[in-house]
Amino acid sequence: MRMFRNDYSEGAAPQILQALIDSNAEQCVGYTEGDPHCEHARELIRNACGRDDVDVEFCIGGTSANIVGVTGLLRDWEGVICTPDAHINAHETGAIAACGRTVLPTRDTDGFVSVEEAERVWRVQTSTGRHMTLPAAIYISNTTELGGVWTAQRFDALCDWADDHNLPVYVDGARLGSALTSEENDLSLAHIAQRASAFTIGGTKCGLLFGEAMVIAHPRLKESFGYLIKERGGLMAKGRLLGVQFETAFSGGLYWKLAQHANQCACALRDALVSIGLKPYGSSSSNQQFFVMDNAMAEKVEEALGCERWLELDDKHRVMRFVCSWATTMADVTEAVSYIASL
Amino acid sequence: MRMFRNDYSEGAAPQILQALIDSNAEQCVGYTEGDPHCEHARELIRNACGRDDVDVEFCIGGTSANIVGVTGLLRDWEGVICTPDAHINAHETGAIAACGRTVLPTRDTDGFVSVEEAERVWRVQTSTGRHMTLPAAIYISNTTELGGVWTAQRFDALCDWADDHNLPVYVDGARLGSALTSEENDLSLAHIAQRASAFTIGGTKCGLLFGEAMVIAHPRLKESFGYLIKERGGLMAKGRLLGVQFETAFSGGLYWKLAQHANQCACALRDALVSIGLKPYGSSSSNQQFFVMDNAMAEKVEEALGCERWLELDDKHRVMRFVCSWATTMADVTEAVSYIASL
Amino acid sequence: MRMFRNDYSEGAAPQILQALIDSNAEQCVGYTEGDPHCEHARELIRNACGRDDVDVEFCIGGTSANIVGVTGLLRDWEGVICTPDAHINAHETGAIAACGRTVLPTRDTDGFVSVEEAERVWRVQTSTGRHMTLPAAIYISNTTELGGVWTAQRFDALCDWADDHNLPVYVDGARLGSALTSEENDLSLAHIAQRASAFTIGGTKCGLLFGEAMVIAHPRLKESFGYLIKERGGLMAKGRLLGVQFETAFSGGLYWKLAQHANQCACALRDALVSIGLKPYGSSSSNQQFFVMDNAMAEKVEEALGCERWLELDDKHRVMRFVCSWATTMADVTEAVSYIASL
Amino acid sequence: MRMFRNDYSEGAAPQILQALIDSNAEQCVGYTEGDPHCEHARELIRNACGRDDVDVEFCIGGTSANIVGVTGLLRDWEGVICTPDAHINAHETGAIAACGRTVLPTRDTDGFVSVEEAERVWRVQTSTGRHMTLPAAIYISNTTELGGVWTAQRFDALCDWADDHNLPVYVDGARLGSALTSEENDLSLAHIAQRASAFTIGGTKCGLLFGEAMVIAHPRLKESFGYLIKERGGLMAKGRLLGVQFETAFSGGLYWKLAQHANQCACALRDALVSIGLKPYGSSSSNQQFFVMDNAMAEKVEEALGCERWLELDDKHRVMRFVCSWATTMADVTEAVSYIASL
Repeated sequence: MRMFRNDYSEGAAPQILQALIDSNAEQCVGYTEGDPHCEHARELIRNACGRDDVDVEFCIGGTSANIVGVTGLLRDWEGVICTPDAHINAHETGAIAACGRTVLPTRDTDGFVSVEEAERVWRVQTSTGRHMTLPAAIYISNTTELGGVWTAQRFDALCDWADDHNLPVYVDGARLGSALTSEENDLSLAHIAQRASAFTIGGTKCGLLFGEAMVIAHPRLKESFGYLIKERGGLMAKGRLLGVQFETAFSGGLYWKLAQHANQCACALRDALVSIGLKPYGSSSSNQQFFVMDNAMAEKVEEALGCERWLELDDKHRVMRFVCSWATTMADVTEAVSYIASL
Repeated sequence: MRMFRNDYSEGAAPQILQALIDSNAEQCVGYTEGDPHCEHARELIRNACGRDDVDVEFCIGGTSANIVGVTGLLRDWEGVICTPDAHINAHETGAIAACGRTVLPTRDTDGFVSVEEAERVWRVQTSTGRHMTLPAAIYISNTTELGGVWTAQRFDALCDWADDHNLPVYVDGARLGSALTSEENDLSLAHIAQRASAFTIGGTKCGLLFGEAMVIAHPRLKESFGYLIKERGGLMAKGRLLGVQFETAFSGGLYWKLAQHANQCACALRDALVSIGLKPYGSSSSNQQFFVMDNAMAEKVEEALGCERWLELDDKHRVMRFVCSWATTMADVTEAVSYIASL
Repeated sequence: MRMFRNDYSEGAAPQILQALIDSNAEQCVGYTEGDPHCEHARELIRNACGRDDVDVEFCIGGTSANIVGVTGLLRDWEGVICTPDAHINAHETGAIAACGRTVLPTRDTDGFVSVEEAERVWRVQTSTGRHMTLPAAIYISNTTELGGVWTAQRFDALCDWADDHNLPVYVDGARLGSALTSEENDLSLAHIAQRASAFTIGGTKCGLLFGEAMVIAHPRLKESFGYLIKERGGLMAKGRLLGVQFETAFSGGLYWKLAQHANQCACALRDALVSIGLKPYGSSSSNQQFFVMDNAMAEKVEEALGCERWLELDDKHRVMRFVCSWATTMADVTEAVSYIASL
Repeated sequence: MRMFRNDYSEGAAPQILQALIDSNAEQCVGYTEGDPHCEHARELIRNACGRDDVDVEFCIGGTSANIVGVTGLLRDWEGVICTPDAHINAHETGAIAACGRTVLPTRDTDGFVSVEEAERVWRVQTSTGRHMTLPAAIYISNTTELGGVWTAQRFDALCDWADDHNLPVYVDGARLGSALTSEENDLSLAHIAQRASAFTIGGTKCGLLFGEAMVIAHPRLKESFGYLIKERGGLMAKGRLLGVQFETAFSGGLYWKLAQHANQCACALRDALVSIGLKPYGSSSSNQQFFVMDNAMAEKVEEALGCERWLELDDKHRVMRFVCSWATTMADVTEAVSYIASL
């Protein structure tokens, strides 16, 4: 049976792989600094964003992108507001602190930074002047860690608040494809590009072998990105690999098709599991689905389908995560549901 | 009227100042490296601790001490468990992150790290291996930020848990004098020295012009302290100033007398304010007292007595802090109480 | 004409690319944590090293590897001895300092750390105790930045000195393949594995799409690598990509064949250029060759063959670098020489 | 006999100590944030500088000041040009690297950053774009480590070059008093304040118990200082101690008188030692003097007068340092010379 462990268990989508094969014999300058593939990918992404005044850069992976993108917005004594479950707070081994900056978690529990909590953190942190870390950026991810999708209303409300406080908004788009093609979504890439100071377009979890593009509107990050990506060890020597993959992904809408496919599989899985009586944890229309199970079922699902334990709800129940990807098929979904139904 | 703003609003206790005057004409080697005053202070503190196998070092201030003491216990990817209101989390401008390490706050709201919360943080942080910051030390302060005093039972319970998890315990003793001379206290300096991996003995807030002593039992910190204190900018050129002050403070029990006096004034103030109907916030037997007041009274108290607003309880009430020191007199207390009673 | 710009201008060797194609449809766990390809590659590399007590890990690129490998050997106040032209000193944008550690360059001008200079740096840095950065590791690269190859005698002499001073030796093997297959070489992989505390086996510059393997013998780095690679943004989500490439490279000696081929092209180029009267700069038997040219010729060679200016010798002469790779052919060499001869 | 070991072997000048005694009973707000002594000292220093648009801040010591002053001028990937013997490069245990920034030493051997060397470092470091640390500040010290005094011509030449390259100049004035009162000096405090982006006025080595003032003209450092001084552990709780000392030092020219006295003693010592046939090392008109001695004499001088070995010239000769301070008397000088003459 196919694993539903995560979306980076897979290789590359065939079109991406083919592009790597086709370009393999070329000689290119390194470091994403002017090879034709990177330049073409930049142009395609700028077009998709509807802005030609943004910088488009390439990173080898999500943590590396977050390190450069977030710390490049912050001075030494500044911090970034995010949810407690934010990847930068909970799953990157203190990478922001390793660069000397502080993560300032809100108390939001649903994966979305709320205006109320952002405001609360802001007030606390600015209450005693220089004795506390100064909030200087907001980090959100779309989709959230729990598969949530930012609506335009929610996003704009946070961006409005951020503008009022002169805080840049950084969007971790490791699963941006899934977010923007979900049935709930009403945000466009152009809208995000208009309001976010910087955001990533995740490749690793959406059909590429690896790589994230970063769209940068903020002047400070434009200045800092080039140096930081090198200094922090994230600059790829054969930079064209990133260019080749992203130009392919952004030609003919491939990126969005791959993402939408994963969503469709995930939603089919969700609906089928609900129909056999399983209880979803939260509500997701993206490629990650979370379900409550008793421990016995959870263990079988973990073993047979590679699902990760997301949370221990109580002594007897766990939340299990199912992730679909470009490589998942509807047949895989059917097989998984049958298996679970048989337990 | 005397201000009750804080315990570092004052100069040095007369005996400390006299010792600085008396030794002023001496020539000494620098950097706390072997001058007779530092050596003597080391000996006195080791004796007071009942251990001759600990290192005793000197720091210029509390934040500098915490930077060296906490980060010297941690490797790059490690973090320190503490309460949310811990000085290192809330009032040192991200100083631990500035050294690349992570602060891991519990959810304790009373200023004490509880075993339950330490255990919870530990479990979360070790649940996904290297993808999360590894807890590698515990930071507590005695007294706590809210003036709380660690009992032997509470302290030992945490130390037992820490031992089981092989975690060093670091005690920020900026107000250790106040803690160990409070009426609630049943801990001895020797007991702390026996169980803590490192702790500070605060001078700034207990009658010295400035300076903290650090008692170090942990091998890693013994190795790292000497280099870190220099690298982090905390090594004093005229190191003998620290030696002179601490040898005076630890001769004839001066340090404890100064602390006890501050406690007595603070408890007298507390009892008097309670007797006129004011409501304490929490319970403190140390030199910091917290009282709930309506906004109008709070503003007058802030202006007349220099008290700091500690918390906004609701729209109409605030928590105000009163701090007594070696320099406060019972007459000061009486005058302050009369003033407040008149409001 | 083929560019001789560098060895990362190329794609992957066909066998490597094929292995990526062949494994593309597999599902694997992520992060190099136990997928069969990484495990197999680890086994092959351990065998090639003749040690089963070393850890074998994988990095996305050279700077990332150096960040983790070098800083993982150092405590906060420690530094690494290397040549002034060392990659970590001259071409990585202060990446070691960005992790809080210090680079301690010798005065060696030929790319090799000499015992004399290592000793001199050691003496200076340990002359005033904690007031100076403590040397705690040695960084060398094989080949050196100038294409030099470490002989067993030279390597052992430095390792002996390092052992006497209890300093780990870290070998940056970005071009280790080229070094160990050069005509001058008398070192074995097993010999390096026996004496180095850690070293990398470069893939990017030797036929892989990307990636470096790191062989770790030093206990401190064994402990720190797993966390540091994540914290510093260098842990690859689809870790199996590194495993697939390295298992292919270390099956049937492919890695060494690719490297040897590059050397042969480079030496043929060298000999041909010497025979037409050009003057080599330094002496190299590896895949990088350096030649002195007048400015006019240098500019043409830069334009036509993509060669990099390495050094401005004087107002009229430059040192130009020629780099061959697995993709260079003898026909490419002949064509390049003919072109240069025609100038 | 009086030691000539260094200028921080002494206590405070009597006037400074008296001011501390006189103000000891006052209650003041903390952290240099608005107490009357700090405000008064700021005003006096601004007046002495002839600029009212500079910020004047206070630091606890020289390394702490350099950490904040230098790294506050630099972004993460930037570096500071200085001489190899600069305090930040050679005697502060990698403090700049500990904040993630890079020190870029020139090859100047006389303690002065030359335009030629600054230009050379600049060219090298900007030759390959983001692959190298970007020079973004220049650090000089006046007096230099070897007691050298910057002339107006030399200083202006460097500042002109720095202006052309848009580089701020930071002056470490740990011994600025000695520099500006030396017989060679033709620089005024106002001149330095006009051209330097930031500079310190050293108290520790010029009659204070401790403390350095920093004059800040650069907008970036104005913004960053307040937060950095706290984050790096250098903010003094009883900030008024710094205010009291500096207002005394800058009242009635005391600071300059103390410095000049030390210079006069040092020059008398210098002339007397030359007259008995000893050879100076370099040329100094400030409070540090360096003399070449054979090893036997050097050891006696080290033991009897506390002089530090500065350099081992060859197997038989050393350079020894003699330092005079506000506390040295002409009688001390005479006694020391007699002793040396007797050897």
